[in-house]
Amino acid sequence: YNQYKQNKYRAEAKEIMQLRNYMAEPITPISQLEKTQDDMKAQMEMLIMRIQAEFCRALEKEEDEEAKFKVDRWTRKEGGGGITCVLQDGRVFEKAGVNISVVSGKLPPAAVQQMKSRGKNFENKELPFFAAGVSAVIHPRNPMVPTIHFNYRYFEVEDKNEVHWWFGGGTDLTPYYLNEEDAIHFHMTLKHACDAHDASYYEKFKKWCDDYFHIPHRGERRGVGGIFFDDVDQPNQQSAFEFVTSCAEAVIPSYLPIVQKHKDDAYGYYERQWQLLRRGRYVEFNLIYDRGTKFGLHTPEARYESILMSLPLNAKWEYMHEPKPNSPEAKLMQVLKVPRDWLLIQKSKSSTT
Amino acid sequence: YNQYKQNKYRAEAKEIMQLRNYMAEPITPISQLEKTQDDMKAQMEMLIMRIQAEFCRALEKEEDEEAKFKVDRWTRKEGGGGITCVLQDGRVFEKAGVNISVVSGKLPPAAVQQMKSRGKNFENKELPFFAAGVSAVIHPRNPMVPTIHFNYRYFEVEDKNEVHWWFGGGTDLTPYYLNEEDAIHFHMTLKHACDAHDASYYEKFKKWCDDYFHIPHRGERRGVGGIFFDDVDQPNQQSAFEFVTSCAEAVIPSYLPIVQKHKDDAYGYYERQWQLLRRGRYVEFNLIYDRGTKFGLHTPEARYESILMSLPLNAKWEYMHEPKPNSPEAKLMQVLKVPRDWLLIQKSKSSTT
Repeated sequence: YNQYKQNKYRAEAKEIMQLRNYMAEPITPISQLEKTQDDMKAQMEMLIMRIQAEFCRALEKEEDEEAKFKVDRWTRKEGGGGITCVLQDGRVFEKAGVNISVVSGKLPPAAVQQMKSRGKNFENKELPFFAAGVSAVIHPRNPMVPTIHFNYRYFEVEDKNEVHWWFGGGTDLTPYYLNEEDAIHFHMTLKHACDAHDASYYEKFKKWCDDYFHIPHRGERRGVGGIFFDDVDQPNQQSAFEFVTSCAEAVIPSYLPIVQKHKDDAYGYYERQWQLLRRGRYVEFNLIYDRGTKFGLHTPEARYESILMSLPLNAKWEYMHEPKPNSPEAKLMQVLKVPRDWLLIQKSKSSTT
Repeated sequence: YNQYKQNKYRAEAKEIMQLRNYMAEPITPISQLEKTQDDMKAQMEMLIMRIQAEFCRALEKEEDEEAKFKVDRWTRKEGGGGITCVLQDGRVFEKAGVNISVVSGKLPPAAVQQMKSRGKNFENKELPFFAAGVSAVIHPRNPMVPTIHFNYRYFEVEDKNEVHWWFGGGTDLTPYYLNEEDAIHFHMTLKHACDAHDASYYEKFKKWCDDYFHIPHRGERRGVGGIFFDDVDQPNQQSAFEFVTSCAEAVIPSYLPIVQKHKDDAYGYYERQWQLLRRGRYVEFNLIYDRGTKFGLHTPEARYESILMSLPLNAKWEYMHEPKPNSPEAKLMQVLKVPRDWLLIQKSKSSTT
């Protein structure tokens, strides 16, 4: 019994230490999280709290000392809330937003309808739901450092006394200048995270990502892709959670080495202007096509500042801008128009060396 | 007969002189426009050509000599085309776009459906249509000069061998710093244009404008409004056309005096930053809510460069930006949050003097 008590104390102490490292107090009261720690809702909240804190700290390490994340903890009348962390106008990061939200309530029929169109078979009335997710967009200042976006989320909907659950998420990279080595490193890191759980995932979710981040009116992708998935409820809840955990933990190793490698690269006015034009395309995708943004903005009582933190600090639109043929800008456009299979390229490279 | 012939020559000579002043050759061949000049399709095309040319010339007069509109005449495979005029990076105008389009073809069922939801009672299948319109967005460089937008259009849809037609349009102003005199002058000019045709129009279309240019997620309007209308088919085609002509002809007197008054006003870094943030809101409205932009971008074969010329050259998004209390920026926000009845204000002013 003494041994058991000691372990319990140790576990609690560890928990409290972790809590101190979080960006803010969890949305769900700590006592409730502790009581329900076998429930996926609590597990997911703990995961996104940890991912948010680890990622924010990793980014701050690349910055000047005075550049720190501003932390806003907010709550919703209907239930739940979120923690929005934004670092703006830093030397390395022009705008970095890392947001978690843990919300519950009733899903309006319009939203239920949207689920149905995605193959879910729910009744067309208000349904109780729970959603928890982490979402981040990082816009660095140096045009040689790509923008990264990731989002991992867990959903529960109750219909006819049955709880339906699934995970969704993804990580994708938007360079302003193409560096093939970086793209391969990025995709390779995501593939490792996928392969540990299902050998078919990377290929499937890489294609899903290319299809999702598509700007139809321009016939181009937002960036060089990554992975994207929705409706993951296989093989069971715990395994699906572990897959999502691996993906979320892969964000730092996939991205930080690229930041460190290029954050002090030389660039000039011309490269900055091109970056701003590409940021305009980022805005176009997010405001016109991104389901998360649209869904968020059309939700009553949505915290629009958290939704729109994904927009860059600065963006530009020039009429009829065309990169010069064979320029580094044109080289980027080629891979945005026809997505590349980055890891096949690597295979053929290593087989010839 | 000689007299008649002479008159005819004179008329033709006049026509050719006018054509020389247009920004480009009309989309419909001149011979066809001449043959069908009693048809509203031809009348509308001539009107929008004239309005485009007059407005572009009026803006060029405010600019340095070397700043001229770039003219792109484009055609669509399915029928018709347009003339897009853009002046970018001028001393007075940071980005000015004035576009006309004259298009015909088959309206896809999805677009027909949209018409139905607006109270039209069309069959739910592909229908022959014709649309001609002029549309402009002017983003000046000086934050003391407001942005103006206007659009005037004519629509025909053929259903069960019957031609349905209607006009739509509007003019609205988006200041960065509020100048009440300017807002009153702007609204007064539009009211005069309306009053000559129907005493109820200004009030009705002013409210329609406030309702339309609404950014729900921020609870603010895009600017200080103006007029906006759709589905005008009363009292008859010729009178409706004359009303639209008056509105289109009111653009220059409503806006140019404001440009001339403020284009050399002093401003600094702070005012420029505020202007860029407000331009971000302009992008939000246009990409998320504007029906014309959405309709355009979802139309196959749309010329997206002409649709997106409305976006500013530069825009900015800052997380949680709040103007200081009682600042000029906060004063603008007040009228964006609660639209004002500009002409009632003027009445009460003049009754006290």
